[in-house]
This record gives sequence, structure tokens and C-alpha cells, in this order.
Amino acid sequence: METELKEILNDLKSLQNSFSDPSLHSQFDKIRCRIESLVSLAKSGPMHRSKVKDMSAEVVDSNPYSRLMALQRMGIVENYERIRQFSVAVVGIGGVGSVAAEMLTRCGIGRLLLYDYDKVELANMNRLFFRPEQVGMTKTEAAVQTLSDINPDVVFESYTMNITTIQGFETFMSSLQNKSFNPNKEGSGVDLVLSCVDNYEARMVVNQACNELNQTWMESGVSENAVSGHIQLLVPGETACFACAPPLVVASGVDERTLKREGVCAASLPTTMGVVAGLLVQNTLKYLLKFGQVTSYLGYNALKDYFPTMEMKPNPQCSNSACLKRQEEFILAKPARDAAARTKIEAEALSSTESPVHADNEWNISVVDDSEFGVTNTGSSDVLPEGLAHELPSADGYENLPASEETSNPLDDLDDLRKQLETLNAEKS
Amino acid sequence: METELKEILNDLKSLQNSFSDPSLHSQFDKIRCRIESLVSLAKSGPMHRSKVKDMSAEVVDSNPYSRLMALQRMGIVENYERIRQFSVAVVGIGGVGSVAAEMLTRCGIGRLLLYDYDKVELANMNRLFFRPEQVGMTKTEAAVQTLSDINPDVVFESYTMNITTIQGFETFMSSLQNKSFNPNKEGSGVDLVLSCVDNYEARMVVNQACNELNQTWMESGVSENAVSGHIQLLVPGETACFACAPPLVVASGVDERTLKREGVCAASLPTTMGVVAGLLVQNTLKYLLKFGQVTSYLGYNALKDYFPTMEMKPNPQCSNSACLKRQEEFILAKPARDAAARTKIEAEALSSTESPVHADNEWNISVVDDSEFGVTNTGSSDVLPEGLAHELPSADGYENLPASEETSNPLDDLDDLRKQLETLNAEKS
Repeated sequence: METELKEILNDLKSLQNSFSDPSLHSQFDKIRCRIESLVSLAKSGPMHRSKVKDMSAEVVDSNPYSRLMALQRMGIVENYERIRQFSVAVVGIGGVGSVAAEMLTRCGIGRLLLYDYDKVELANMNRLFFRPEQVGMTKTEAAVQTLSDINPDVVFESYTMNITTIQGFETFMSSLQNKSFNPNKEGSGVDLVLSCVDNYEARMVVNQACNELNQTWMESGVSENAVSGHIQLLVPGETACFACAPPLVVASGVDERTLKREGVCAASLPTTMGVVAGLLVQNTLKYLLKFGQVTSYLGYNALKDYFPTMEMKPNPQCSNSACLKRQEEFILAKPARDAAARTKIEAEALSSTESPVHADNEWNISVVDDSEFGVTNTGSSDVLPEGLAHELPSADGYENLPASEETSNPLDDLDDLRKQLETLNAEKS
Repeated sequence: METELKEILNDLKSLQNSFSDPSLHSQFDKIRCRIESLVSLAKSGPMHRSKVKDMSAEVVDSNPYSRLMALQRMGIVENYERIRQFSVAVVGIGGVGSVAAEMLTRCGIGRLLLYDYDKVELANMNRLFFRPEQVGMTKTEAAVQTLSDINPDVVFESYTMNITTIQGFETFMSSLQNKSFNPNKEGSGVDLVLSCVDNYEARMVVNQACNELNQTWMESGVSENAVSGHIQLLVPGETACFACAPPLVVASGVDERTLKREGVCAASLPTTMGVVAGLLVQNTLKYLLKFGQVTSYLGYNALKDYFPTMEMKPNPQCSNSACLKRQEEFILAKPARDAAARTKIEAEALSSTESPVHADNEWNISVVDDSEFGVTNTGSSDVLPEGLAHELPSADGYENLPASEETSNPLDDLDDLRKQLETLNAEKS
């Protein structure tokens, strides 16, 4: 609008210059003046908030961070402003991913990487975030438009591409490794990857990338009948990866077989997706800012308001070779971890004047050990907490998988497992 | 912009008419043509979606309801389109209320009544929904602007006022009783009231209105340290009202006394508020569309991802006289309810050909009875499920409240209880 008005202004000026009568000039000036005020109106556009250099805890209406910095005063978070150093990648900007991205943006995350290849449709309007006026835009473009208006302090990178293609995977990998935002960061260029995709294949791709890069990530999902969902933390080598165990879903109590048979158009609800996005980003904040308990697996059954939790150890016979490599590294690093834990306990005991803890107490050390290795190995067994079920249909021989720790010939079994998983994947895709 | 451009066009036309030279006319025409194209550009504005007469289940990108109507095909909801007949009042358009209103709008609710007296500030930007360009607008005005763009099928009514003033309360009451949207509806003019306010006084006002109108409502809340919240269903006479028992909060494990002492600026997070709004509207959908189990009380402890539930019977010594009246009516209507339940069971038994249920089976009837009256009376006792605590600090004598069913002199005790609650309220406000 601004450019067009300026062009009209120029045309009008040259027309005006062809007259010498001063009374006509005043009439032209009047019209030009009105157009000029429209130019400045078009220039200002809707009110935008300016960037904020430091997060302030000052309690004034104009401070967008006052209610977040209050988390420090309330004793919940030690240093909230650290959030500006973190980079989070959100893969899939649909019903869960878009809301997760908005929550992170409003929390003032340092940098957000957004991945999606899809366009906004009216059929997406039953979930939060996208607006009808954005129909036809790519989801990444629409998201960056909305999010940078909401918080200009966040650095956005958008990738409009399919990560399951060869070229898409390469770009995905290199984008995660780019350290220009925080050159001193250890490991990859991002602190966390959030998988908010809606299919098995894309999850396996995120899993592959994160195993290769030794990148901690969180997975999320919502069932096709829209009434259950889950989030899951995946730490390569330490927890089960997505290929270690068939993916779990929260049983809704509705017959899943009927559901799968009936059709291709999945149902969805803004409620279920909003809850899953909220739980996912809450877990992200707890992980990044080190408060509360970071959850390994949290399910949500909306029909019963039931929230099962569980932990999953890695499968020593996982079909993913990068996962096996990370498992080896994790085992090799155990003595170093134990020593670090011991040092930490000793330091805490020395600095503590209120509670007399003995620095060399064996029991203390074994507690740390427990929380690392004492988790239930449900990764390759069928023993699941109430309310959880496997997402994929069971295939012949699938239920006779060898228990991972009792295997006599790991190599043969590993091949078997690979073949079975390949069969399952082929059925699914 | 459109009006201004048209005025400029008129000025230009009258200036043009003062010349007779045809060569000058063509130059004027050129400029006018450019302005006219800007008028039509300004007129069209951003793309809006048009109204939809009937909800269709057709699976096309342009159908905003396809993913919701899929809930029917998936066997979750029997008749989704009924949602268009319902009116929901959202009191308080803050961090929870605005998201709840957006979810209901995207679900295609028939009519939304919005109540708030506050203005949008930059300090609200750490929660979902409001945008920086809306700063300075009233929350109701900004909400209706955003929501009617998202779904023009919803009928919006906004009330920019404080319900805790005498005049505000009167308007609140009459707005809830207005039946013009659905003249044949029984009871009040709305199907559900959602309380999304942030203070005790406003909750007591919603409680008063709903008790007087015999109006079912749901309460929601988020703690001052932003890491816990709850939702609660309140059915006058059937469940505890908000005055029946001191309000409950989900304990976060953080020392609440420190928290209360430290300051006035509450912390807030888009995650916690998004989760609470999601759980609240999910419960609303289950209640209105009759699917799943409607939850009586659901807490959310974000630090531990713990979700306590409970049920609360009304307190026969409640300080609210309208509540006592509703309790009386509920008891008087018991025989009619029992008869209806018996008829329903008989009808189901007759129509059922698969499972042979005996229509006059005593056990069946007693099950229905159980679910109505067999709930734990934690309303006036200190026996609370793990993870729940009273929101108000305990006062002297508060812990010695008589157990409601063992009272020898109900009238004296009722007076005592009233006095104690008044003292507590005075401390809180």
C-alpha cells in the first residue's frame, strides 16, 4: 500500500508542476497532504512491540517478561533468563507443533527452528494457531509471520521441506549442526528437538537424526480418534530410542481395529492437541531450565482423564545401529558419571550446614545409580502400565520376541528383530 | 483507509472538473484509476472465511469442520453438530479464559458469552491468545475481533464489565437468563458457565449466580507460582458448591507460605494455562456432547506431572442459602431420578439382544444410586487425596469444623461456619 501511494503522489506532483496558477496549487497541496498522511498510516501498520535487550523482572504493564521472571522470585526457576541461550527445533507445525512453537515464543526462547512442507487449509481451523486469512500460505511462513509479531526477540529459522526425502534429511541434519547462534555450545547446534509430526516414517527420521547426532529429543503424538495423546523424552543411549520398542499409544477404550478400518480422515480436537502441546513444552522448560521432574513418558486419555507414566530402557538389540553405538558410549561413560555424582554429593554435603549428610555414604551413591539404571525394562517386553498399548498391530512372531537380557545369540536375534520391524514398517507406510 | 481514499478521490474529481483540456483529463484519469484500485484492495482486506450453513463431514481441505465431524465416524461422539445449539459463558478472558474461548470457537460452539473488564497489556504476552497489536483494547473487544475472524459461525456476546459490582452482577444474571438464542431451552439461557477468573471474590460471585439460577458450571484455576492448576465441575445441589468447602489447590511442593509472603506479581506460564484450558474445554465437550467420563475435580501438578482427582458432596451446612435450597430440591427429586434410572435400565435391557440384563435387577438400580450418592464426602473434612491442599490458610477453629453428618445442632454450627468463612474471606480480599 505504501509504495502505491508514493507512486500516486509522484504522478500528482508532476501534474501539479504543469500549472502555474497559485490557487490550483493550494488545491493540489491539500490532496497531496491527505495522501501523505495515508502513507505514514500505511508505514506504521499495526502496533508492534519493540525488541527487549534484557529480560526485566519489573512489575509494569509494558513488560512482556514480568510474569516469567516472577518464576525466579517464587523459587521455581533459578535463572529464567538462560532461556535466551537455548535453541529448540520443532519438527511438524501442525496442531501440536504450532502451539508448542507459540508457547516457546511467548516464553522468550532464544532460537526456534521450524520444519514443515505443508500449507495452511481451512480444514486445519479446528485446531489452535492458524487463522483463515493464512489459508494457502506454507505453515512455516504463516508461523513465522504470527510468531515474530508476538515476540520479535526470538530468532526464527524456517525450513519448508519434507525431512523424509534424501535432500530434506541432509538439510535437516546440517541445520541441527549449525552453531552460529551459540558457537561455544557442546554437541549439536540445538538444545532440544521436538517431534510434532503425524506419521511413523517422519518419527523414524527424527529418531535417526537424533541418534546420529547424540541429540536429546522429545516425541509427541495424538491418536486418530483425537481423544488420547502422549509425550516422551528420548536421550540416545540412555532411554529407549523410537526404534528400540514398537511405539506406544494411550488406549482410549474405543476399539482401535474399527477405527483403523473405517477411514483415512483422522479426527482432531483443539483441546487434546492443546493439552499435549502444553505438556510437551512444560517438559521442555523443566528440561532446559532445570526445575521439577522431567517426565520420561506421559500419556493422556481424555475420555477418562487418566495420565499413565512409565520409563523405557534402551533395547540392546535395537535395529538402529546409531542407537547401539550410543548405548555402548553410555555404558563406557558409567564410571565417569558415577565419579561426577559422587563429587556432586560430596560438594553438597560440604556446603550444607543444615542437614548433616556424610559425603562418603555408600547409600547416597547407590540412589543415583538406581535412578539411572533401575528403570523397568518395558522396552522389549509386553508388560505395559495400565492404559498403554502398542500402536502397531501385532504381527506373527512379534509377540515371541526374545527377552533382551536373556539372549544367547545377540547377533541372530538382532537380525530377526530387524526383519520383523522392516515388515511392520512396510505394512504401516 | 477505504473512507480516506474515497474522500481523496472526490477532491481529485472536483479539481479535474475545473479543467476542460482533454489531455489533462487523461492524466487525472490515470491517477484516479490507481486510487480506485487501492480502494478495492483496502475493501477486500485479509481473506475471511464465509459462514457455513450445515456442518459437513466431507473430507476436503476447504471444510473447517471435517476433522470434528470425523469424531462421529470414529464412534467418539454420537451427534457432533448438536454443538451449534449450545451457549457457553466464559467469565474472565485471561490466560485460561481466552484459550478456552478460542477452543470452543474452533469447535464450532453455537454461542459464546464473554465477560471481562480488563485491557490487553504487554505483560499478558507470556500467555497464549492476545497479540501485541491488541495492547490497549479491552480483552472482550480483542477476543471478539480474533474469534469472529477464526469462526464467523459462532454468535458472540461480549460484556465489558466487572461482575463483582452490584450493577455488573445484575447484568451478569440477566445475560445468563436471556433465552433469545434458544427459546425452547429448559432452565437458564446458557448450557454451561466456565469460571476463568483469577481471584476468590469473582469465583464467589459466579458461585452465587449459578446457585441462584440452578446453573451447572465449571471452575478453573492456576496457582500463583504457575506450576499447578485445577478444573472442577459444580452442579448446584448435587456436588459441593464453591462455598461448601474451602477451595482446594494442587500442592506444588514449593513452600506456599514463602510464596504468599514474597510478592504481589503472580508468575504465569503459557504451558500451565494452556493445559488447564484444554482440560476445561475437554470436560465441557464431554459434558455437552455426552461422551467419555465428565470429571468432577482434576488437578495438575506440573513439577511432577501428577493429576489428582476427587469428588465432593455438598455441605449440608453451606453458608450459601441458595446452595442449601438446591440441596433440598436435589434430595426431594431423588424418587423421580430413581424411577427415571429404572426406566432407562429397563428400556436398555429390552432393546439389548446381546447382553441379557434383567430389567428388575435390584443390583443394577443400586449401582446408579451409588454413583449419585456414594461419593466420598471430603467437602468439609480434612481428608484430601495426595497432592491436594486447601487454598486458604487455616484459621483457629477451622480444623475443628464439625463433621457435617454427625452434627447435633445444625443451626448453631451453620452460624459458626458462616462466621469462620467470613473471617477467611475478609483475610483473602
